[in-house]
This record gives sequence, C-alpha cells and structure tokens, in this order.
Amino acid sequence: MLESQKVFLVNAVLNYFSQLSPISSEFIQEIEKNVEPLLIKKNKHILSPIDNNNCVFFVVSGLVRGFIREGNKEITTWISAGNEFVGAIQHPGAPPKPSIEYIQALAKSELVAIPYLLIDELYSNYPETNIIWRKILQFQYHAASERSMLARIPSAERRYEKFMELNSVDASRVPLRCMATYLGMRLETLSRIRSKMVRQVV
Amino acid sequence: MLESQKVFLVNAVLNYFSQLSPISSEFIQEIEKNVEPLLIKKNKHILSPIDNNNCVFFVVSGLVRGFIREGNKEITTWISAGNEFVGAIQHPGAPPKPSIEYIQALAKSELVAIPYLLIDELYSNYPETNIIWRKILQFQYHAASERSMLARIPSAERRYEKFMELNSVDASRVPLRCMATYLGMRLETLSRIRSKMVRQVV
Repeated sequence: MLESQKVFLVNAVLNYFSQLSPISSEFIQEIEKNVEPLLIKKNKHILSPIDNNNCVFFVVSGLVRGFIREGNKEITTWISAGNEFVGAIQHPGAPPKPSIEYIQALAKSELVAIPYLLIDELYSNYPETNIIWRKILQFQYHAASERSMLARIPSAERRYEKFMELNSVDASRVPLRCMATYLGMRLETLSRIRSKMVRQVV
Repeated sequence: MLESQKVFLVNAVLNYFSQLSPISSEFIQEIEKNVEPLLIKKNKHILSPIDNNNCVFFVVSGLVRGFIREGNKEITTWISAGNEFVGAIQHPGAPPKPSIEYIQALAKSELVAIPYLLIDELYSNYPETNIIWRKILQFQYHAASERSMLARIPSAERRYEKFMELNSVDASRVPLRCMATYLGMRLETLSRIRSKMVRQVV
C-alpha cells in the first residue's frame, strides 16, 4: 500500500475520534504508531475463527459483513457500508479469543485495524479514550439492538420494509444471498418481495 | 415503599457502579438525590410508547422484558433477570423521544430509574462516569449482538439450544408465549422442542 494511502486511512480514524472528543497529540501518535491500515479485496475474509480476535476495525470505505456458519450455511449477522467500527462478537473483560463470527469484504474495502490491547492502554493513559469509546459503544449498542429487533419481526415482508427503513446500506450493493440470511428468509422469498416492492413503486 | 427498601435499591446501583470504577462521595450524592427506586407488580408496564423514554433502568431483582407490537402481536425483544441495565431503544445523541419498545415486569420486580439527563450531567462533572458507562455499554452491546445472532439461526431447535446455552435467565420462569416470540417460533413449535429436550434429558 502506498504511504499516502496509509496516511489517508489513519487520518480517517483520527478525524472520526476527534469528532467525538478533543484528542491530544500524544494520543494521535499512539494511534499512528499502533494501528494497521488494510486494503481488502472483494470476497476476502478479514477475520475468521482461526484468527485471534484481537482487533476492532474502522471501515473507511467499501462494504463489509459479519457472518456465522450454521451447518453448511453462512448466516449474515451485520452489514456495514463504512464510517463506523465493526468487530467480531467478544465477551467484554475476557481475554481476546477466537470468535465464532467471520468478517468478510463484500466489495473492495479500506479498513484500519486497531488492537483491543492498544485501546486498553489508551483507557489508562488518555482519559478522553473513555469518552470516545463510550460514544462509539452507544452507536454500536443502538445498531445491534435494531438488528436484534429487525430479525424478530414475524412477517418477512415487514422485515424487508424495516430493513429498507433503518439501514444506511445501499441494498442494491448487497448480494441477495447475504441479505436473505440477514433478513431470515429464503432467497426466493426475498426475490418475490423485492419484485413486488419494485412493481408498487413503478 | 419503605425508606429502608429505597436505600437498599439505590445502594444496589451504587455497588454495581463501584465495581466498575471508584466513585466519589459527590457522585454518590448525585445518584442518591436523582434516581427513583421502583417496585413493579407482575405484568405491569414500566415504559410504553406513550411515556417519555427518558430513563434507563437498573434491574435489581425480578424478571423484566422488552417488547414491540407488530399488528396485534407482542414480540419479545429481550428478557432480563436482573443485575443489569435495561432500556428502550433510543438513538444516541438524539433528544429522548417516545420509543417503539415497551418494558414490562413478568414477575414482581425491583428497579431503579436513572434519567438520561442525569447521566449526561455526570459525564461532564464526574469523568469516572465515562469509564462506568463505557463498561456498561460493552455489556449491553455484547448482549444485543448475541440476541441479534440468536434470532438469525435458521433452525428453531438450534435457536432454542443456543438460548439455553447463552442465557442467564431461568427459562422456566419465562411465560411460553414471551419466549416463543423472542425465539421467533410458534408456541406449538416451542412446546414440541421443549418436550423433546426433556425426553432426551430423562
């Protein structure tokens, strides 16, 4: 990766942080030294259960999903189109351990990996980290609560409508098979609902 | 409510906070002055969409659920058996507004209501609040991610197994109709799965 591209990606994270709280130059240096900018090709895995689940990722651009395997099926658990933090599920307080969740790029994506250990150090040395991460967790908790509610709506058509209403992701970029498992419906059901909605709009 | 009972409930919250970070005597006074201990009878609503969604609740004891209405159905979105914070879904940063989520006691429950406005004030005046709430949000985010993942498992039987594996709630205390909507299955399906599991254990 070009040096200029690395700088661009790390700056994207720093900008995001500085919108949540003022940050010191020492804090900035710690981030610059210890995070890892990543360019991920379409369909590549960013994290899988054989990896140490020791980083959280800031998605700068692209399209990224989380999924779990159930038997021979991949079940999409979340979809991100960027400008937010994503990570595989992890028990708070427990030492990082391999996750059951996979993270995959659905399109060419730019990310920045931030080690959980770095964040723990920042908590101790730069109290503003607690403000920043408290705000990030508020967004993450809200998004996870919406995902949880969405999946429990009994009607497949209402789940699709709610997804369109809630989500900042451009649905046309998400492969149908990923969206179907995210919405807890068969591929044929999703196709049928989409055609119906398009007909209604036209 | 007896004064001694109020003191007991407020102390339960303070104990919980102090396990997450040291707290100052001024912080303790703010909490003592501004939170509201609640005794809720079985089946009573604690919050509904006609109320201002302006408090988060610490469940000291009992059994509490969140639910939404879809048509004439109540869909359980979470279940808490206590020693944790619960709240209706709310967009971070936005001013409190009525929620689509209801909160209801499924058994006689003891709670403490903490206004969001108080927490915002505490953030500014007592920096330890950012540490405390960051840790609470880590628990909440983890729990919401698990709920979100659970609901997307395609097999009803596997959802039930995962619920039993994940959940700290004693399933025998939860009314079947609440558990069925939480697990995204019909009441008959849940009954059938439970009977099968009992037979396997015996």
